[in-house]
Amino acid sequence: MEIGLIGLGKMGGNMAERLRQGGHKVVGFDFNKEATAKLTAAGSVGVDSVEDLVKNLQAPRAVWIMVPDGKPVDDTIAKLKPLMQKGDIFIDGGNSNYKESIRRHGELKAEGFEFVDVGTSGGVWGLKEGYSMMIGGDEDVVEKLRPIFETLAPAPDKGWGRTGPSGAGHFVKMVHNGIEYGMMQAFAEGFAIFEAKKELQLDNAQIAEIWQYGSVVRSWLLDLTAEALKANPELKGIAPFVPDSGEGRWTVFEAIDLNVSAPVITESLIRRIRSRETDNLTDKMLSVMRNAFGGHAMKKE
Amino acid sequence: MEIGLIGLGKMGGNMAERLRQGGHKVVGFDFNKEATAKLTAAGSVGVDSVEDLVKNLQAPRAVWIMVPDGKPVDDTIAKLKPLMQKGDIFIDGGNSNYKESIRRHGELKAEGFEFVDVGTSGGVWGLKEGYSMMIGGDEDVVEKLRPIFETLAPAPDKGWGRTGPSGAGHFVKMVHNGIEYGMMQAFAEGFAIFEAKKELQLDNAQIAEIWQYGSVVRSWLLDLTAEALKANPELKGIAPFVPDSGEGRWTVFEAIDLNVSAPVITESLIRRIRSRETDNLTDKMLSVMRNAFGGHAMKKE
Amino acid sequence: MEIGLIGLGKMGGNMAERLRQGGHKVVGFDFNKEATAKLTAAGSVGVDSVEDLVKNLQAPRAVWIMVPDGKPVDDTIAKLKPLMQKGDIFIDGGNSNYKESIRRHGELKAEGFEFVDVGTSGGVWGLKEGYSMMIGGDEDVVEKLRPIFETLAPAPDKGWGRTGPSGAGHFVKMVHNGIEYGMMQAFAEGFAIFEAKKELQLDNAQIAEIWQYGSVVRSWLLDLTAEALKANPELKGIAPFVPDSGEGRWTVFEAIDLNVSAPVITESLIRRIRSRETDNLTDKMLSVMRNAFGGHAMKKE
Amino acid sequence: MEIGLIGLGKMGGNMAERLRQGGHKVVGFDFNKEATAKLTAAGSVGVDSVEDLVKNLQAPRAVWIMVPDGKPVDDTIAKLKPLMQKGDIFIDGGNSNYKESIRRHGELKAEGFEFVDVGTSGGVWGLKEGYSMMIGGDEDVVEKLRPIFETLAPAPDKGWGRTGPSGAGHFVKMVHNGIEYGMMQAFAEGFAIFEAKKELQLDNAQIAEIWQYGSVVRSWLLDLTAEALKANPELKGIAPFVPDSGEGRWTVFEAIDLNVSAPVITESLIRRIRSRETDNLTDKMLSVMRNAFGGHAMKKE
Repeated sequence: MEIGLIGLGKMGGNMAERLRQGGHKVVGFDFNKEATAKLTAAGSVGVDSVEDLVKNLQAPRAVWIMVPDGKPVDDTIAKLKPLMQKGDIFIDGGNSNYKESIRRHGELKAEGFEFVDVGTSGGVWGLKEGYSMMIGGDEDVVEKLRPIFETLAPAPDKGWGRTGPSGAGHFVKMVHNGIEYGMMQAFAEGFAIFEAKKELQLDNAQIAEIWQYGSVVRSWLLDLTAEALKANPELKGIAPFVPDSGEGRWTVFEAIDLNVSAPVITESLIRRIRSRETDNLTDKMLSVMRNAFGGHAMKKE
Repeated sequence: MEIGLIGLGKMGGNMAERLRQGGHKVVGFDFNKEATAKLTAAGSVGVDSVEDLVKNLQAPRAVWIMVPDGKPVDDTIAKLKPLMQKGDIFIDGGNSNYKESIRRHGELKAEGFEFVDVGTSGGVWGLKEGYSMMIGGDEDVVEKLRPIFETLAPAPDKGWGRTGPSGAGHFVKMVHNGIEYGMMQAFAEGFAIFEAKKELQLDNAQIAEIWQYGSVVRSWLLDLTAEALKANPELKGIAPFVPDSGEGRWTVFEAIDLNVSAPVITESLIRRIRSRETDNLTDKMLSVMRNAFGGHAMKKE
Repeated sequence: MEIGLIGLGKMGGNMAERLRQGGHKVVGFDFNKEATAKLTAAGSVGVDSVEDLVKNLQAPRAVWIMVPDGKPVDDTIAKLKPLMQKGDIFIDGGNSNYKESIRRHGELKAEGFEFVDVGTSGGVWGLKEGYSMMIGGDEDVVEKLRPIFETLAPAPDKGWGRTGPSGAGHFVKMVHNGIEYGMMQAFAEGFAIFEAKKELQLDNAQIAEIWQYGSVVRSWLLDLTAEALKANPELKGIAPFVPDSGEGRWTVFEAIDLNVSAPVITESLIRRIRSRETDNLTDKMLSVMRNAFGGHAMKKE
Repeated sequence: MEIGLIGLGKMGGNMAERLRQGGHKVVGFDFNKEATAKLTAAGSVGVDSVEDLVKNLQAPRAVWIMVPDGKPVDDTIAKLKPLMQKGDIFIDGGNSNYKESIRRHGELKAEGFEFVDVGTSGGVWGLKEGYSMMIGGDEDVVEKLRPIFETLAPAPDKGWGRTGPSGAGHFVKMVHNGIEYGMMQAFAEGFAIFEAKKELQLDNAQIAEIWQYGSVVRSWLLDLTAEALKANPELKGIAPFVPDSGEGRWTVFEAIDLNVSAPVITESLIRRIRSRETDNLTDKMLSVMRNAFGGHAMKKE
């Protein structure tokens, strides 16, 4: 089928290509001219404006938005709305907060448009291996997009599904990322323990490779970790600095709001925050207190 | 090659069968006569005593011990020693503490025997899918056992390896289980959040199945979880009670001894302990304190 | 000086009385007629309506609002505004979110009123021992209320202060409560360890009493705990169920928003949430997973 | 009464002086000649050897050992034993592991000596304010030392007590320190949040001072913190590096061994360990994983 795609970055660009390979007509736009040109070169339709994107699609249209969460999504929708017509479908495939998705669904629905929220996982490997998609929205609308999902997914009947009403897609993706934080932290702690156990001369790259087959912890994350460790066994040149992209903290907020105790997902987020702290006041305070009551020496800066 | 196997339970029994299917001669003993009979019925040699086990093997012998950690391992070794001869190999494939393995290696070596510690992962699926094995011990001894490892592993060249000197096998397996605790806890928290989000009517079984393909969290644990949720979506009849088997807490102790901060593995253990606490004094104390300073009502039992 | 006080509950009622004892004229209102009657009986002016409260005060007026956070505060302000005149001061002494306080300050200021946010600590003991007050707002307005603060505080020059501009009072009180959670949890865990160490036959009440003098952990919380343990050493009849009142979770949200890692305050909140969970899905999931990969028996409900 | 004191450091020196001021005859020894000289100058009996110490005391003797835990305690006892006689009392007032104290009690008792374990809290302030003492050992022996405890304590009947049989003193002190870690961490996190909230321009020294009077968090630790912040409001020159002295980690091990979930005490220890980690492998691993699956940029060292 035909689909518009706004945002041709790491994720969007690969998705466009996977859709093209699957026989769909993709009309793509990005502020980055190079990305558009690359799309055209690959055999899809790269356009220079949102107006052109809409013009190149026949109604009822489906436009997949793949831009950073927050204002960029609202801006894109605002730009599209006057150009689109009733029944056209907006798809937000990015990492939006599910509450925003519920709001957008309500607002667009009130004006006669359709809106679907798609939590999209798979990272840079999606082009080759397919994307896992968690979809929230009205059943009939999701059904209309079936050909798109069947192509983007690892297999037509695997790795995607409507998880519930509007918001359910981004909600499930949000928690997916929270779980991802926990798994990553668990692995990272384990390898740090190995590194510290000097007398056993353990080799993290070798261990990761062994675990890929037959172990309880075998997983895609481990596969990638094994490859990365093979390429750079001592992680030379890499700073111990870990960003977080929003969904982890939303998961923590949501767990607390729902009165669900989620210590490991929470701790994984806190640990990432900690990785970015320098000149830590908490630790200085502890040092000062120890000195104050026990006369313990303080390390000086 | 020939191998003796002591302990024909969930793990040992399956391993014996995988070895037999791989063309090895397995002589097996278990206090449970049924287990021995089953072994014989399958085409291996089930025997009624440790003495018979040793008699049925030609020197230099290799005896794989697959019994609970601690005293049972020492008892088995003590019983075997007078029957074995110099150069014979003891293999501890169970979940022993690596410090014990280092001790046993030293003691046996001093008496002319060989000892190898093998951390064995794979659970009840190992017969079909193979075992992941992390091996500690002397290089030449591990090399002698190569045919055994190649058969037990998922593939001859995959899923096993000598990770270091004596103790390195059980050490790596110990941390493997710590990581496993963290991964499990992360998934479990995520599904608990889904269950609590009533208004989105999420379906844990469906979500687990979607994630199996293309998501960042895809893993063997998730595959098993998806199957379990399919069979019992609401986990009916299952108590919220989680044992821990020793290796998780050893990992926590080790991390602290090594001065490695491992909050997520640690928290996963603490949470399991919490699952078994009833009539919680900590929480009662908090309730009493709130009442004492703020006059807040206490819930009565 | 003269002061109006709306909300004569556990906190407000005691504050009114402390103010009266300090020589101030207190005009108090509460929907609960008993509370108003009690105020009058004590020698202050209990009134039946917000209208009467305002009428009984001479401009420029100061009205201290001591009601639950959220809608009740906004409702009270809305009811007061038409009755008050420019320059009159609204004081929110409850546990409001500091963001709301900043908003209310802005809105009231725009209409010519003054607004001060006061985080008030001291619980049911404040009448006797005085209140600790953290105050946010304009300096000149705080200064006008000095006689009130000097009376409510433990001593005229101790236990109160303007901590910053609007919002700073409730912000500091919010974090105060977060710290309180952490301290309480630390004590509670310690006493739970004592109870579990059966062979040493420790006596929590005795230990708490010993620690009150000379120890590093001596504190007001410990004093109250010692008394509570003396009265009920085994905490008989008390359920292990711990509410949380909002400020703890706001502290956690704020720490994350500010990118400050605060694991202990966070964990204290999570543990309170955990105390209220029954039929825990997280723990059931863990049990199911252990069974799925390792064949471990599941405890049945 | 008469007492010998071995170890005249920060703690022991002050205790000797408090005992002298209380009318006791103190015979003190330390390898540091200056410490001994200072003792003599103050009016007690400083001696140059353990032999002289014993000689200067009349049987039945009481010798208080105030040296680092572990080997130094055993060495001191070993040196004393041949010089002492049946019925003499050994007192370990340091931070020994309670399991060692139980062992030492058993060994000394078997040889006709007495042994008492005293957990001593109060730090450098003990000389002035008295020490909190938690005492384990036989009732009659503790009773014989009553004059000593009454003098060292903040008041004759306050701040000390026999908490149980041998080991109970050091056990209670161990957990006391675990609680202390939790309280310190809670305060430190709170002040770090204040520092990060730039727009409110909060002043940690002022807040600490306000809280000292009337707040729920008022405590001795807060008093010391307020003073330290007054002296150095921005904690200039202090490194964010926090040692831990053993008792915190023993508390964590003990909680796990007893199957008591103690997340806050545990997390406080982990956070101290974290403060000493540099070039963190865990965080590098996380960075590498994010790059591997999502193509996220890694910060370079």
